[in-house]
Amino acid sequence: MAQKQFAVIGLGRFGSSVAKTLYELGYDVLGIDVDEELVQDSVDIVTHAVACDSTDENALKSIGIRNFDVVVVAIGDDVRSSILTTLTLKEMGVKMIVVKAQDTMHGKVLEKIGADRVVYPERDMGARVAHNLISPNILDYIELADDYSILEIQAPSKFVGRSLEQIDIRRKYGCNVMAIKHRTHINIAPIASDIIQEGDVLVVVGRNEDLDELDETR
Amino acid sequence: MAQKQFAVIGLGRFGSSVAKTLYELGYDVLGIDVDEELVQDSVDIVTHAVACDSTDENALKSIGIRNFDVVVVAIGDDVRSSILTTLTLKEMGVKMIVVKAQDTMHGKVLEKIGADRVVYPERDMGARVAHNLISPNILDYIELADDYSILEIQAPSKFVGRSLEQIDIRRKYGCNVMAIKHRTHINIAPIASDIIQEGDVLVVVGRNEDLDELDETR
Ligand SMILES: Nc1ncnc2c1ncn2[C@@H]1O[C@H](COP(=O)(O)OP(=O)(O)OP(=O)(O)O)[C@@H](O)[C@H]1O
Ligand SMILES: Nc1ncnc2c1ncn2[C@@H]1O[C@H](COP(=O)(O)OP(=O)(O)OP(=O)(O)O)[C@@H](O)[C@H]1O
Ligand SMILES: [Ca+2]
Ligand SMILES: [Ca+2]
Ligand SMILES: [Ca+2]
Ligand SMILES: [Ca+2]
Repeated sequence: MAQKQFAVIGLGRFGSSVAKTLYELGYDVLGIDVDEELVQDSVDIVTHAVACDSTDENALKSIGIRNFDVVVVAIGDDVRSSILTTLTLKEMGVKMIVVKAQDTMHGKVLEKIGADRVVYPERDMGARVAHNLISPNILDYIELADDYSILEIQAPSKFVGRSLEQIDIRRKYGCNVMAIKHRTHINIAPIASDIIQEGDVLVVVGRNEDLDELDETR
Repeated sequence: MAQKQFAVIGLGRFGSSVAKTLYELGYDVLGIDVDEELVQDSVDIVTHAVACDSTDENALKSIGIRNFDVVVVAIGDDVRSSILTTLTLKEMGVKMIVVKAQDTMHGKVLEKIGADRVVYPERDMGARVAHNLISPNILDYIELADDYSILEIQAPSKFVGRSLEQIDIRRKYGCNVMAIKHRTHINIAPIASDIIQEGDVLVVVGRNEDLDELDETR
């Protein structure tokens, strides 16, 4: 099967990161920005880069934008251009259009005119950073449901030197340890006799209130 | 123990999301922006909001910024103001300063002048969105190490109707199923006889190459 072809319109911080990541993962990426300088600066992070105004339908046609499997619209401050570009891509028959929105209002308009996916990078990352500020021991997390999460968390110091059996996280905190990270080694099938060491990181799944309690144990 | 007090300088998309999340989690948050209109619009998402220029040391003093446990600087485009604000906060003795950076250059300067943590919201979210575009079945992930991750992934259709024992993911794919999400129910201690149903979401831990193979199974 041929690999997906991506185009990214708007090479600001978000757009260039999307483009660079896809390119580094081995995909073909066309970068587009109205700013010639940004286009020149992006030669190392995309397969091809083109300077043009994406609200200009003829420009998009001559690039052959219809042939791309996924087009990401990462135009920020200029909401009018973002909407106009999305509308044009939709009319041209682009199969998958992903658009960055400034706020909920912008996002709703984008969905109405046919954006297949709307993303809010600043808002989502703001929430992640806020969670991390409250609990600096939480390194990362996945929200599985309203009240269930997975946490990647620094092992509380009172766990150090004790085995999972002795700590008995399952019964005492109602959560399950799914993995233990010891320096560069990862144990993805922890057993009762495994002993927590200084600096270890635990991956734990459970109900949010139980995880909060675990996080407060230090 | 008294709860931490937060201040957020710059109420753009990122800053306002940090402020709102902290406030909704029950913390005291002071919001600061030079833009009076933004300050007025933020009354519902912070405890207090003040309009002032954060590069003005006297203004920061009169707010009593030193008394806050964590100050987040979320000024974006105006890199000079971001750096000057960080420098001033550091000189005033603020304990924990978290700053949003535009790019690596900006970030390096911030670290040099004493920012305790530098964040790159657009870059980080760009990478997340790119990963998700490649594998739409991957709903979320945690990078545990260079080559190990946890995935929240739509169960491949060929797993449906079979038990974990029959599928034998451990032996066939080298990964471990840590949780199964069936509609709103989450099973955080899956056993061999558990049967995967249509629409289930799996939480799987393993080596990236093994997880890739699992993702390609459909
Ligand atoms: N009509 C257009 N055609 C092509 N590119 C455009 C158009 N309008 C804006 N852009 C480009 O989109 C990019 C991103 O826009 P902008 O900087 O306003 O967004 P932003 O939300 O601040 O971005 P970020 O936060 O990701 O850095 C800019 O490089 C800009 O030149
Ligand atoms: N010296 C200053 N004092 C206080 N607030 C400031 C100062 N300079 C800029 N700000 C505010 O910081 C906020 C964020 O700045 P800006 O919009 O440039 O960043 P951004 O990176 O585009 O933000 P985002 O992508 O999060 O929306 C703005 O609301 C702006 O008014
Ligand atoms: Ca910008
Ligand atoms: Ca802005
Ligand atoms: Ca931004
Ligand atoms: Ca991590």
